Amino acid sequence: MRKLRISTFLGLVGSISGLDILYSENDGSPYCANFSTFTTELDHFSFDDRKIDIRVITDDRFYKPGGPVLFYTGNEGAIELFCENTGFQREAGEELNAKLIFMEHRYYGKSIPDNNNTFLTAEQALADYADYLDQLKRNTDVGPVIALGGSYGGMLAAYIRLKYPNIIAGSIAASAPVKFFPGQFDCRGFYRVTTRTFANTPAGEVCADNIRDSWAVIKQIGSHMVGKKLLSDTFKTCKVITDTAQLTDFLQEVWGSLAMMDYPYPTNFMGDVPGWPVNKACEHLDKKYGQMDLLDAVHQAAQVYYNYTGGMDCLDLGGGGDAPDLGYDAWYYQTCTEFVMPFCADGKQDMFLPSEFNFDDYKQNCINTFGTYPRKDWPEVYFNVEAMKQIGNIIFSNGHLDPWSSGGVLNQSEAGDRNPIFIIDQGAHHLDLRSSNPLDPDQVKEVRKQYLSIIRQWIADANQSDTSDRQL
Amino acid sequence: MRKLRISTFLGLVGSISGLDILYSENDGSPYCANFSTFTTELDHFSFDDRKIDIRVITDDRFYKPGGPVLFYTGNEGAIELFCENTGFQREAGEELNAKLIFMEHRYYGKSIPDNNNTFLTAEQALADYADYLDQLKRNTDVGPVIALGGSYGGMLAAYIRLKYPNIIAGSIAASAPVKFFPGQFDCRGFYRVTTRTFANTPAGEVCADNIRDSWAVIKQIGSHMVGKKLLSDTFKTCKVITDTAQLTDFLQEVWGSLAMMDYPYPTNFMGDVPGWPVNKACEHLDKKYGQMDLLDAVHQAAQVYYNYTGGMDCLDLGGGGDAPDLGYDAWYYQTCTEFVMPFCADGKQDMFLPSEFNFDDYKQNCINTFGTYPRKDWPEVYFNVEAMKQIGNIIFSNGHLDPWSSGGVLNQSEAGDRNPIFIIDQGAHHLDLRSSNPLDPDQVKEVRKQYLSIIRQWIADANQSDTSDRQL
Repeated sequence: MRKLRISTFLGLVGSISGLDILYSENDGSPYCANFSTFTTELDHFSFDDRKIDIRVITDDRFYKPGGPVLFYTGNEGAIELFCENTGFQREAGEELNAKLIFMEHRYYGKSIPDNNNTFLTAEQALADYADYLDQLKRNTDVGPVIALGGSYGGMLAAYIRLKYPNIIAGSIAASAPVKFFPGQFDCRGFYRVTTRTFANTPAGEVCADNIRDSWAVIKQIGSHMVGKKLLSDTFKTCKVITDTAQLTDFLQEVWGSLAMMDYPYPTNFMGDVPGWPVNKACEHLDKKYGQMDLLDAVHQAAQVYYNYTGGMDCLDLGGGGDAPDLGYDAWYYQTCTEFVMPFCADGKQDMFLPSEFNFDDYKQNCINTFGTYPRKDWPEVYFNVEAMKQIGNIIFSNGHLDPWSSGGVLNQSEAGDRNPIFIIDQGAHHLDLRSSNPLDPDQVKEVRKQYLSIIRQWIADANQSDTSDRQL
Repeated sequence: MRKLRISTFLGLVGSISGLDILYSENDGSPYCANFSTFTTELDHFSFDDRKIDIRVITDDRFYKPGGPVLFYTGNEGAIELFCENTGFQREAGEELNAKLIFMEHRYYGKSIPDNNNTFLTAEQALADYADYLDQLKRNTDVGPVIALGGSYGGMLAAYIRLKYPNIIAGSIAASAPVKFFPGQFDCRGFYRVTTRTFANTPAGEVCADNIRDSWAVIKQIGSHMVGKKLLSDTFKTCKVITDTAQLTDFLQEVWGSLAMMDYPYPTNFMGDVPGWPVNKACEHLDKKYGQMDLLDAVHQAAQVYYNYTGGMDCLDLGGGGDAPDLGYDAWYYQTCTEFVMPFCADGKQDMFLPSEFNFDDYKQNCINTFGTYPRKDWPEVYFNVEAMKQIGNIIFSNGHLDPWSSGGVLNQSEAGDRNPIFIIDQGAHHLDLRSSNPLDPDQVKEVRKQYLSIIRQWIADANQSDTSDRQL
């Protein structure tokens, strides 16, 4: 399972699986507890009467009749976490007098109808959202609906505009790796961007060079029993390392995660993480070291992510790279069906252990684990970026620091002339959707203003179109 | 089942069910025998390894490398029948040096994986077509793909452009009742247009008046045993009529079918049908009659459809309105799942027996027959006409004589400025897709020329867009 594992970050994120690592914002929580349940078809594509209950958070504080809807297309996790970490939605809602809705993705959080992922697909989740919104539009006086989401939620925001343009007037697809599929991008992308983020700190390129050098050191020292004990002591692991892959897998995830969460201000997930954590990590790696000193420095740097305030007794590396308890995780299942996300590294233009992406191996793992046959070309057929060009009204935003940006829509010719694109130079994973913060770079403040202006235009266009329809 | 039955025309069309009544053209057959089999996912929306074999007809006589594809989105019947009756596709193919493809709809013809309609939906059929075309595009040098189809096939042509604009550059949706759903049109539409077609023949409005008057006569005479025998003798039924609904259901289907097939030249289906058959039928109904003479006249008029050359020994009305053998027909199943098509009549602005559309009854019938729960709002959510406006490049054509036009897109404001519309004054059900015929009205000749010109533009635009993509 090793090749799959990095795409899920499961080792670190615990119950929150998938692309996203979430950090609670202080402002959100009180507004993310107003739950209701929406009952819809368990299988939207057959016609029996089985149902599923989906959780929905609504927030009507700012809503005025006829106002727009800002709809968060929930992704791989409990919906309150996305609600708590998407402060931009509340800030925009106040400006627009919008109804705020956050809808949970089926098979995550508390919207789980069975333990077998039987009807877990993006198509079903999109149909959940569309059904909810269709009924909302039929039964209330809401205005146009704007979808938004980050990461996989951003993919879903783009997809729902693509598949239900009658329901969604426009979308913000924040840090959405809509091209992160075989044949559509270079599988080395994720690690290359991570490396760039580490090489561009004040510490200089030596930071990335040290990490690149560390793999051989770990491998060499870990090649014998005494060395494994030494590694375990250095990294304060709870159990003695039996295979160096336990450590290298973990560290690769840590570096990727640090780049994803390289926010300008402190965030809180596994303990406290400081602002600009990659800079902080690289402060420990800012010069050349001998072997043992390098390992110590790597340990210090990695702890910026998982033990910054020093409260952790020991590091639990879990069952290692092939931990069997990962088997039935829902996001892992999704990567074994329609979302084949390829990762690879060459160790030259990136600072990671060289690895190849082999679809046959990947597929065999999926068959063994879930009995599923992943379809590597399906997103290109069904969730196609060229098609998004034609439909328009999708904002593609990406953070230059964020490894997932490697699978995003990064230039205007890819996006087409109807989809605005934004690259946030000092942006990590969907920074733009977070609450305003005094430490935000000026660029993200400006970008959020532009989002509001674009959304206002979409709403005006949609209202105009509705009026013309009524006049027929 | 009576209320459902009229929507399927099953009583008349035998093994060809659904919206379409097909008449073989003379030119087509030799080119409609080049079958191959495409193997694809039985369920495109789960990820197991079950497969389905779909029949495909290809015709490469006119194709030159890099040329476009004209792709017929097969509808509810054996694919060779659609191939044989879509001569326009061959004529256009010759002009465009196109590859011609006709793909069978799953669960029809010989593409039937099981007897339970388990994976029979339009979404699955569209995914069959998309998968085939995606592989064709990956593995060969074909140019842009234009989809076309008539009736339900026309709906599918519109839908595939809507859902897979990355694969389909444009579509001709001929006589496609894309709005023939609850809440989207007046359920009296089908019978009103039929009535208009009958009232506008040289015989004058008396033709429709006679038909309207006939129902009371049939009911009155059929109210006793002797009268039922008399009706049976008059209409030369094989068995004595036990319920006048057997006869009135049949006649209502005949009138609707005659209007659908009101072509300017003879066609051949159940025996020979003359050119302009509604005119011919109305010649028998061109003056006021007494009761018995009216029944005779109605009998003569109806025979224009099913016994024009007089070879039929007796009229088989089958098991009547509730014939149980209709239960597992595939199209009937589709009307009991995602395509709820409402019919009703007021007997005033139309010449039919007054009837209401009651969704609760309709639904209960579906539950009883198939165990399915039809979703009346689903097409508006998933196959939405407003969404087609946004995507563009869909030709909506309708025949003014054709009852199905009542559920079509008939004006430019409904179609939007990116979708051309055509109304063919003397056109019956997708006349425009048939082979050229010396008796064709000038308008349909002109319309076909315009289709070619529009398709050329779509192809040029798509090639242009491909070239820009490659230049990135």
